[in-house]
Amino acid sequence: MLFHVQVEITLKPTVMDAQGSTIERALQKMGHDGVRKVRIGKFITLEIEAQCADRARAAAEEMCRELLANPIIEQFAVQVVEAEKECPA
Amino acid sequence: MLFHVQVEITLKPTVMDAQGSTIERALQKMGHDGVRKVRIGKFITLEIEAQCADRARAAAEEMCRELLANPIIEQFAVQVVEAEKECPA
Repeated sequence: MLFHVQVEITLKPTVMDAQGSTIERALQKMGHDGVRKVRIGKFITLEIEAQCADRARAAAEEMCRELLANPIIEQFAVQVVEAEKECPA
Repeated sequence: MLFHVQVEITLKPTVMDAQGSTIERALQKMGHDGVRKVRIGKFITLEIEAQCADRARAAAEEMCRELLANPIIEQFAVQVVEAEKECPA
């Protein structure tokens, strides 16, 4: 079965985000005074062929640990968007 | 009032994603055979001081059009995560 998966990868809260700070200052200079704490991450969408939603999620989490995220400075959140069927017991 | 806002910026479906294709092939070579259609976007979190959730959303959408996204090749989705109060009529 095919599952649509979304992965949000963000810097850990303690890691300084230079790109985010730069964009924040630019937005403020453009007149958006009410903007704070801009942080930039990655948003990855993919399709995974798996037996069930739980296995698709496990596969995506493994991909994050192995390649997509840098576990030293980044954290990730996986969402299986279309979960078609529960795992067989 | 302070609102937490999440912005997902993705390439339009018709735009080729070279970075996504490269990561897709890398994942497949690492043994993740069931992976398809990997696409890479940006995930931006920010805080916006605004009178209500609707205005925070409108401000975020304006920031996307002005700076955060490239409207020629990218599309964006804004989520106001903590909506504390409706706009006054």
